[in-house]
Amino acid sequence: MQAEIITIGDEILIGQIVDSNSAFIAKQLNKIGVSVYQITSVQDERTHILKALTEAESNADIIIVTGGLGPTKDDITKKTIADYFNDTLKEDVSVRKNIERLWDVFIKKPLTKVNIDQALVPTKAEVLMNKYGSAPGMWLEKNKTVFISLPGVPYEMKALIDDEVIPKLRARFKFPYIQHKTFLTYGLGESALAERIETFENELPEFIKLAYLPSLGRVRLRLSAKGNDRAIIEAEMKKQIQLLLSQIEDIFTGFEEDLSIEAVIGKYLTEQQKTVATAESCTGGLIAKRFTANSGASKYFKGSIVSYTKEVKMSVLNVSEAIIDKHSVVSAEVAKAMAENVLQLLDTDFAIATTGNAGPTKDDTDEDLGIVYIAIATKSKVYSEKFSFGNHRVKVINKAANKAFEMLQKEILKK
Amino acid sequence: MQAEIITIGDEILIGQIVDSNSAFIAKQLNKIGVSVYQITSVQDERTHILKALTEAESNADIIIVTGGLGPTKDDITKKTIADYFNDTLKEDVSVRKNIERLWDVFIKKPLTKVNIDQALVPTKAEVLMNKYGSAPGMWLEKNKTVFISLPGVPYEMKALIDDEVIPKLRARFKFPYIQHKTFLTYGLGESALAERIETFENELPEFIKLAYLPSLGRVRLRLSAKGNDRAIIEAEMKKQIQLLLSQIEDIFTGFEEDLSIEAVIGKYLTEQQKTVATAESCTGGLIAKRFTANSGASKYFKGSIVSYTKEVKMSVLNVSEAIIDKHSVVSAEVAKAMAENVLQLLDTDFAIATTGNAGPTKDDTDEDLGIVYIAIATKSKVYSEKFSFGNHRVKVINKAANKAFEMLQKEILKK
Repeated sequence: MQAEIITIGDEILIGQIVDSNSAFIAKQLNKIGVSVYQITSVQDERTHILKALTEAESNADIIIVTGGLGPTKDDITKKTIADYFNDTLKEDVSVRKNIERLWDVFIKKPLTKVNIDQALVPTKAEVLMNKYGSAPGMWLEKNKTVFISLPGVPYEMKALIDDEVIPKLRARFKFPYIQHKTFLTYGLGESALAERIETFENELPEFIKLAYLPSLGRVRLRLSAKGNDRAIIEAEMKKQIQLLLSQIEDIFTGFEEDLSIEAVIGKYLTEQQKTVATAESCTGGLIAKRFTANSGASKYFKGSIVSYTKEVKMSVLNVSEAIIDKHSVVSAEVAKAMAENVLQLLDTDFAIATTGNAGPTKDDTDEDLGIVYIAIATKSKVYSEKFSFGNHRVKVINKAANKAFEMLQKEILKK
Repeated sequence: MQAEIITIGDEILIGQIVDSNSAFIAKQLNKIGVSVYQITSVQDERTHILKALTEAESNADIIIVTGGLGPTKDDITKKTIADYFNDTLKEDVSVRKNIERLWDVFIKKPLTKVNIDQALVPTKAEVLMNKYGSAPGMWLEKNKTVFISLPGVPYEMKALIDDEVIPKLRARFKFPYIQHKTFLTYGLGESALAERIETFENELPEFIKLAYLPSLGRVRLRLSAKGNDRAIIEAEMKKQIQLLLSQIEDIFTGFEEDLSIEAVIGKYLTEQQKTVATAESCTGGLIAKRFTANSGASKYFKGSIVSYTKEVKMSVLNVSEAIIDKHSVVSAEVAKAMAENVLQLLDTDFAIATTGNAGPTKDDTDEDLGIVYIAIATKSKVYSEKFSFGNHRVKVINKAANKAFEMLQKEILKK
C-alpha cells in the first residue's frame, strides 16, 4: 500500500513557509503501514496540479493533497480537483452549517460571499468535516485510488487526519502489519556507530530495515518491519531487537516513545501527582513553553522564572550575589541555587535550572561559548551537570532544553 | 530561469524529520530571480532518485539535490548521481584534507574508512567545499542544466548555498530582475480582504503577482514582479504599491522586514535603551522564548515569570487573592495586576502579561475557551485587551503571543 503527498501553494515554493504538514501526514500513514513513495510540492497553478495528480495516480493507492483551499483567488485546488474528476462544484448543506456556526461563535462578523463559497464541493466528493475552519476536507475515489484533499492550515489538517482520514482508511483497506522500534543512543557518531553494527545490518532479513536518524548530539536507530504475517514479524523483530541491544549496550539510553519527552514527563508527573518548575537563563523560557504546549500541563507544571539578567537571578530567584561573584553567572553553583530556590518559591517536587552561554558572545562570563550548566533539584537533593553544546545559538538553546528534559526524566524514574 | 529541488532521505518520507531545507533554498533562489517549479522528496532508493533527476531535468535549468550524502549504507545519493552522469568516484585531495582538518580540530578521534570515503566524488564534479562537515557539495553540468548536490545537515547546506552556490549561479547565468514587497495587515480576514481588493488584483499587469499569506490573525499581502527591464518593473511596482496602500490604509501595519516582530521590537528597545519583562499564564513562556531566540536579547529582555497556577500568581507575582477571587483568574484585572507587578519586580520599562483559556478545557474560570486577556504596562500606565482566539490550544497560544508582540510594538512606537 503506497501513498503520495502533494502540497500545493506558491508560499512553499518561494520559501515563505516550511511544509511541516507532509511530515505529520507521512508519520500517521507509516503508523498504519502505508509507505509514502513521494512528497511533491507544486505551485497554485492548474496545469501543474493536474500533472502532479496524474503522476501520483500512477504510483499510489492513496493520494493526500493539502493546501490551496482558502477563499482567495490564488486557491484553486478545489476547482482543479473537480476538473480532474470531470465534476462540478455544488453547495454542501452540512459544510454551510459548519461555516455559519464558526462565524456565529468565533468570528462574529457577517458572512461574505467568499466565505459561503467555501461550502462548494465537487458533487462526487464525500465531505470530511473541518471542526476548526471553513474549508472542508474531501474524499474522492477513481478506479481503486483514493484522493483526499485537506486544508493547508496545520491544526485543521491534523485534526482531519486523526479524526477522519485515518479511521476511514482503516475501514476502506486491509493494511499490512507494521512494527517500528526506535533506539536512542548517545555518545557515538553516526559513522562510528555504523561501523560497529555493520555486520548486524548486513544480516538483517529482507523485511526489516535499519535507519540512522542523527539529531543534535544523538543518533536514533530505527528498525522497521513490514509484512502480512504478524507472528513472523513479531518473532523476528524480538530477536533483532535483542541482537542490536547487545551491540549498543554502552550507548543505549532508551526506546523512543511516540510522545515528546516533555509529554512523557508530564504523564509520569500526573500519575505520581508531582509538580515541576523551571528557572531558566540560557534556555529563556523554552523549557516552560515546551511543557505548556501540552494540554493538561497545569496539573504538574506550576511555572517558571526566566531570569535573563544577574539582577533578576538575585531579586526574584534569591540567588546570592556572593555566589554569583565568586563562581560567575555560568557555573554549577548558580545553576544549583536557581534550581533549589525555584523549587522552594513555587513549592514543587522537582525543579530544572539552566545557565549558560548560548552565544554568539560570551559577555562577562568565565566559561566558553556553548557551555551550559543544568541543575535538577528535588526536596532532598540538588545536582548539576556541565555540557558543551557547540557554537551555534539555536543549537545550544535546543540541546540544553533536550538535555534538561533527559536529566529530569532520569531523576523521576529513579523513584 | 527555473529550478527544482529534490530532497533525498527515508527520514523525510516516514515523517521523522520536517524538510526545512527546501524552504531555505527556495527563498535564496527566489531572491536572485529563480523560481522553483517543484520540490520533490524521494526515498534513499536508486531507481527513484534516477527517475526524479530525469523528470527534474525536463523542467528545470537548475536542480538542487540535498541529502543522502552521509557516511552510512543508506546514503546512496553520490553513487547514484555518478551513475546518472555515467561517471565513477575518485578521491578528491582537497576534500580529504578538509576531512583530516575537521577530525583533527573538532572530532579528535581517529579517521575511519567510512570517514575517508567521504572524500570520493564523481570525476566530472566540481567540489563545493563544506567548511562544517565531511560531505562535500558537488556541481555538475549536463547539456545546459546545472546539477548541485548538497549535504542534508541544515547548517552545512545553508553555508554552502550562501557561500558557494548563489555566487557561482550568479557568475554562470544572467538572471531576470525581481522585486518583492510584503504588506502587513491586521484586523480583516483573508476573504474579506480579498473581496475588498478584488478589482485591484484583477487589474494588475501580467508580470506582477499578488499572494495572500495568512497566519494566525493577520494577513500578509505580497506583490512580486519579475522581468528583464528593471526600469519598467520599478516604475510599475511603485505605482501598484501606492494603489494597494490607498485601499488598505485602515488595516495596514507596516511593510515586512526580513525580521520577526520580536526582533524588530528588540531593535527598538536596544536603540532606546529600554527593557521588557513578561508575566505569562496561557502563553506559558512562549513570549520569553521568542524574545530570547534572538542574539543580543539580554540587552533588553530581563526575564519572565511564567505563572501557570493561581498560587504562583499570588506567591511570586504578588497578585492579590481578592482580585483573583472577585474577577477570576482569566480577567482584565488579573492581566493588569500581572503586568504591573512583573514590571516592578523585574524593574523594566515595559511589561507584557497574558492570562486566558488555551483549552482544551476551561477549568475553573468564568470565561470561554479561547478567551485571552493581554495587558501592557509601562511606568505610567497599564491597560488590557480581551481577545477570542478560537478553540484550538496551539492556535490560542500562538495567536496570543503574536498579539502581545503587536500591542507592545504599538506601545513602543507611541513614544
